[in-house]
Amino acid sequence: MVAARYIGNKGFDIVAGEEHAPKAGEVRLNVGYVGICGTDMHIYHGVMDQRVSIPQTIGHEISGVVAEIGEGVSDFTVGDKVVVRPLDWCGECPTCKAGFTHICQNLKFMGIDTPGAFQSSWTVKARTLHKLPAGVNLKQGALVEPLSVACHDVRRSRLQAGEKVVVLGGGPIGQLVAAVAKSVGAEVLVSEPNESRRAFADKLGVKSVNPIEQDLAAYVDEWTATKGADVVFEVSGVKPAIDAMTQVAGRRGRIVMVAIHSSKPEIDLFQFFWKELELLGARVYEAADFDWAIELIASGEVDVNSFISSVSPLTDIGTAFASMDGNPEGMKALVECNAE
Amino acid sequence: MVAARYIGNKGFDIVAGEEHAPKAGEVRLNVGYVGICGTDMHIYHGVMDQRVSIPQTIGHEISGVVAEIGEGVSDFTVGDKVVVRPLDWCGECPTCKAGFTHICQNLKFMGIDTPGAFQSSWTVKARTLHKLPAGVNLKQGALVEPLSVACHDVRRSRLQAGEKVVVLGGGPIGQLVAAVAKSVGAEVLVSEPNESRRAFADKLGVKSVNPIEQDLAAYVDEWTATKGADVVFEVSGVKPAIDAMTQVAGRRGRIVMVAIHSSKPEIDLFQFFWKELELLGARVYEAADFDWAIELIASGEVDVNSFISSVSPLTDIGTAFASMDGNPEGMKALVECNAE
Repeated sequence: MVAARYIGNKGFDIVAGEEHAPKAGEVRLNVGYVGICGTDMHIYHGVMDQRVSIPQTIGHEISGVVAEIGEGVSDFTVGDKVVVRPLDWCGECPTCKAGFTHICQNLKFMGIDTPGAFQSSWTVKARTLHKLPAGVNLKQGALVEPLSVACHDVRRSRLQAGEKVVVLGGGPIGQLVAAVAKSVGAEVLVSEPNESRRAFADKLGVKSVNPIEQDLAAYVDEWTATKGADVVFEVSGVKPAIDAMTQVAGRRGRIVMVAIHSSKPEIDLFQFFWKELELLGARVYEAADFDWAIELIASGEVDVNSFISSVSPLTDIGTAFASMDGNPEGMKALVECNAE
Repeated sequence: MVAARYIGNKGFDIVAGEEHAPKAGEVRLNVGYVGICGTDMHIYHGVMDQRVSIPQTIGHEISGVVAEIGEGVSDFTVGDKVVVRPLDWCGECPTCKAGFTHICQNLKFMGIDTPGAFQSSWTVKARTLHKLPAGVNLKQGALVEPLSVACHDVRRSRLQAGEKVVVLGGGPIGQLVAAVAKSVGAEVLVSEPNESRRAFADKLGVKSVNPIEQDLAAYVDEWTATKGADVVFEVSGVKPAIDAMTQVAGRRGRIVMVAIHSSKPEIDLFQFFWKELELLGARVYEAADFDWAIELIASGEVDVNSFISSVSPLTDIGTAFASMDGNPEGMKALVECNAE
């Protein structure tokens, strides 16, 4: 048993972790692969040090194999390949009772608020698990969590086949949103200044545009024959995208806010009135999003293999994080936590 | 035939207007009553002089009686009491073709972009008319248009019976929104600094609070047992309400943007993410909103009589406007354009 711990200031240590025997309702996993998320990079940069209890094992984009089963768990067997939906909800607050456990008023995000997956063994509640079908391997499994984010965003948008979509920002989540939107039958345009990310979108089979070199609003106006985009996903987190989103959305357009804007940006509310726009906040995912993501990988509709930039052993976690730092070409770095 | 014309700088003149015989598809009305809208007050203050062609007959909250019928109009008979949905849409743009004629890409708002109703005779397209049932008089009919705004706002919010609603701003539209929300079976709280407007809300049978004297967010938190409001209507147009709307809305709360914010206010987007909020722009109304408004008046579910602050003859239109200027107690001033 080995565990990596974030120790602050871009540092990790590798320790002999502790294996936790599963209690009632829990399952112990041999961890397979764990992806490095944008949020993990934020933690790495120290900006979440007041939320993470240092030293802390982080990581939440995880696949694994069931190793031990606690009392009362009947849905899983030792040897099952699974992924974890890393949300720990209270079940008691009005939001949980209304069925929205993913935005529980007392939500704990596993791998941030509680210990995470960058270790060889992880014990979690069975209610967080989803089984992987035979055709999906553990590397692909580590992509289920970020793909579920994209599935949730697309579900929030009520996207229909044939609709026109603008994705603002071609990072990993933006590209996954584009891939899911394409699988629904939408026509997708990714707006992204970085050339290698635009090339990635091209390989994905969706259009892309450089908003620094081209007038995005004029481009969308022509592309949509003046109608404007049916759906806009703001995945960039940058100020110009906040202006662009209300410009490129057509009348009755839906804008899904995927990026986290911690400041309070100025928003063109007049456009909301004039075009009867809709802004939809989207946070994490629900069980249905995990089911959909697994289905999209199993059916081959979304090729998550192309998103895997690198695979590093757990002992090299520091290098894996460093390689993603300020690297727009890297889509998804995986950390291998047990030899398969 | 007599017509009032806005001549700029808070001024009106009264002229012998011109009666227009209805062309094919048109109907000529003897105008009954015309309400003074907030938008009319904006015009009066000169802030829309670049949009209104001075001198211009304005006014769009109108009831009337069918006086003459053009070729091809079969749904109306001389003597019918009607109201006008004052929208002139093109029918050709992608938005019209998608069924959203009320936000047509080439929409003309009658009474602003084209001549309006402050005259004794008005000729309009028959497709803009809705019949008033026997039990609804012409004074009440003049309230159908603003009530339809409220119906549209409530319809946009997908409000359900039993939900808790906060209305930010207790002006005429805010109070009408509160009344419609109450008729749906929601519990309603109006947030309004002005005492007489709060008293109006009380008479309407809804709760009210003074957000200057009380901590609105804390009040709503207690009122909803930490859940937050299901629906928030921003009807005030002031900056503090923009902050309040994201504070008082609960998880998955819907915020309907009724007020027109011409500047670009700073919005707490983090709350949209965190609580998965929804912002819904709402503009004017659709035919279904007029039908609903007429039904609410006919059934007595919304008592529009209580909204009528004054009734003035057309020749006193200047006084009628002046009496509404900076008068928070006035809800709706009507101008009588023909003796009944």
